[in-house]
Amino acid sequence: MRSPVSRVLDQLEHPIVQAPLAGGPSTPTLAAAVAEAGALGFLAAGYKPVEALRSDIGDLRRLTARPFGVNLLAPPGPPGDPAALERYAAELSPEAELYRVELGAPRHDDDAYDDKLALVLEQRVAVVSFTFGCPTRGEIEALHGSGAEAWVSVTTPGEATAAADAGADVLVVQGMEAGGHRASFEDDRPGDVGLLALLQLVREASDLPLVASGGIAAGRGIAAVLAAGAAAAQLGTAFMLTPEAGTSAAHREALAGRRRTALTRAFTGRIARGIENRFMREYVSAPSAYPEVHHLTAPVRAAARRAGDLDGVHLWAGQAYPLADATPAGELVLRLGWETREAIGTASERLQELSGPGGIDSRP
Amino acid sequence: MRSPVSRVLDQLEHPIVQAPLAGGPSTPTLAAAVAEAGALGFLAAGYKPVEALRSDIGDLRRLTARPFGVNLLAPPGPPGDPAALERYAAELSPEAELYRVELGAPRHDDDAYDDKLALVLEQRVAVVSFTFGCPTRGEIEALHGSGAEAWVSVTTPGEATAAADAGADVLVVQGMEAGGHRASFEDDRPGDVGLLALLQLVREASDLPLVASGGIAAGRGIAAVLAAGAAAAQLGTAFMLTPEAGTSAAHREALAGRRRTALTRAFTGRIARGIENRFMREYVSAPSAYPEVHHLTAPVRAAARRAGDLDGVHLWAGQAYPLADATPAGELVLRLGWETREAIGTASERLQELSGPGGIDSRP
Repeated sequence: MRSPVSRVLDQLEHPIVQAPLAGGPSTPTLAAAVAEAGALGFLAAGYKPVEALRSDIGDLRRLTARPFGVNLLAPPGPPGDPAALERYAAELSPEAELYRVELGAPRHDDDAYDDKLALVLEQRVAVVSFTFGCPTRGEIEALHGSGAEAWVSVTTPGEATAAADAGADVLVVQGMEAGGHRASFEDDRPGDVGLLALLQLVREASDLPLVASGGIAAGRGIAAVLAAGAAAAQLGTAFMLTPEAGTSAAHREALAGRRRTALTRAFTGRIARGIENRFMREYVSAPSAYPEVHHLTAPVRAAARRAGDLDGVHLWAGQAYPLADATPAGELVLRLGWETREAIGTASERLQELSGPGGIDSRP
Repeated sequence: MRSPVSRVLDQLEHPIVQAPLAGGPSTPTLAAAVAEAGALGFLAAGYKPVEALRSDIGDLRRLTARPFGVNLLAPPGPPGDPAALERYAAELSPEAELYRVELGAPRHDDDAYDDKLALVLEQRVAVVSFTFGCPTRGEIEALHGSGAEAWVSVTTPGEATAAADAGADVLVVQGMEAGGHRASFEDDRPGDVGLLALLQLVREASDLPLVASGGIAAGRGIAAVLAAGAAAAQLGTAFMLTPEAGTSAAHREALAGRRRTALTRAFTGRIARGIENRFMREYVSAPSAYPEVHHLTAPVRAAARRAGDLDGVHLWAGQAYPLADATPAGELVLRLGWETREAIGTASERLQELSGPGGIDSRP
């Protein structure tokens, strides 16, 4: 039986996918630059009103005729524990004072999932990807009906199997190196596996095309995941300093530094990786309650961001963020594509050199 | 300027290094089988009397004329806090009762570092590798004088730079996926970077040959680290079920299961990755005090191991351990070598297919 393929991935010129980067960094300009350079651009639906997403899709289509993806946040789990949320809000009150804002209302919502799904179906977007969970079999069939591929982010072999069973076309395999939220289906059981180990494990569990994500920021990293069996690499942080990205000034400043990254629930109530700062160190007790905590801390983070205070705002970044630079996105894609080919060529030559006489190239 | 090379790595037939696997799994028989198949075998000096190491080296030399490595544990940091050790010993007393043993004396020692270093110099071992820290410049010069290469395990770009400055010939880059102890120079600042991100970061910091370790258990994983710029992959857990390995029956049983791995200080006072069990879940408060805690818990672990009780013994394993199997070591090396070549070939073909017309193969 022939292995499943992704038409969208197979038509790229470079095995590179721009990560959706919800929350500001991704823009139609960024996605268009990536697409025009021969890779796959993405828009993020997350945290955006439906009409803003519609407008982004329109803007992107005016900038490029190439296919692109839209990422949806899957509906969250059950609401967080109200008592734990109340305790956390009390703990956060000095932050509200410090930044002279009121904490937000810790509401539980699904980020207008149904409306956004209806919009991408109506708009016949080429790729619709999902984070935080797996769409239903019916939703995936609707996507297929509209001509879309359904991509599902997974962080464990078990999630990979569930997504394959639901009819996913492509698995976005997220290693623990990744910046921003862990894509885990359940926040209290986050996958903690490194990308390379996870690719080997998922490859045994499924023959779907894989897109590898987490800590990839150079052509060598892209070449590595292709060698591990992925069809393409998804890069997020690597695009965040490009001029086309909507990354805030505070976030750009942090990405130019060299502090370590760590995992935290402090900002949103869901495990995510960012550059470690005071807020992350102080609020280790944040409950698992997404998106309630996201709404609770939003005014604090917005005020800190405006003030350029790197200690009060989430600074999502993958573990390879020191390799990101401010190259324009299209140029970056071309450079990465070339570096990828060079890296595979070098590895191939090394293997040739190691092959001594005696037929070790023949199958044992 | 020509990049530094490793004579030992360049003379292998397969880009594979067997990890030292201190504490029982590595044996002269395993190292010989690996070496005879064209990869690099290793002996572990750790936790062994000097005369036992001498005897292992003699046994290995009777089994193969090929070069091999010996791994030394670098001297530990300052002694742990006596009060914290006393508290931990009190916490552990139910374990001593349960397994009907006395806890060990929590002594601070350096595992006979000087004597073992003198032995490998005298024995003119081809490769001497170091875990838990970097040898001095003088020690590395002595190794070079005896004809040995000095390999240093690193878990951060900073450790990589320090090892290169001390004169190391090869950096063993250990990702957080790795089983057993983190090789970090300081236990209270363990590197937590995934292998692929770390390889990209270390490659920017140093041009020394790199051996990649952590969560590699299939040819695809080996191919991936070669594409990322490593000269070879070091595999540990992948060899632990081979018939040549000295892995205990209890440990083999655990490796055949599918429980998750996690990091712990509970067994030895130093961060290490193992298959999660009761002991790891209960003793999360273990102090950073190596090797005192190692000695303290040793009788408990030995008794649990003898009893086949998987809940009282350390079950070191890397994150890709479900891919390990009981293939004989030499056959495993040949299979992995072939899979590696196939994986690089497949990635190379994929890149060819993606290259549409228009010269995207030319350097931007």
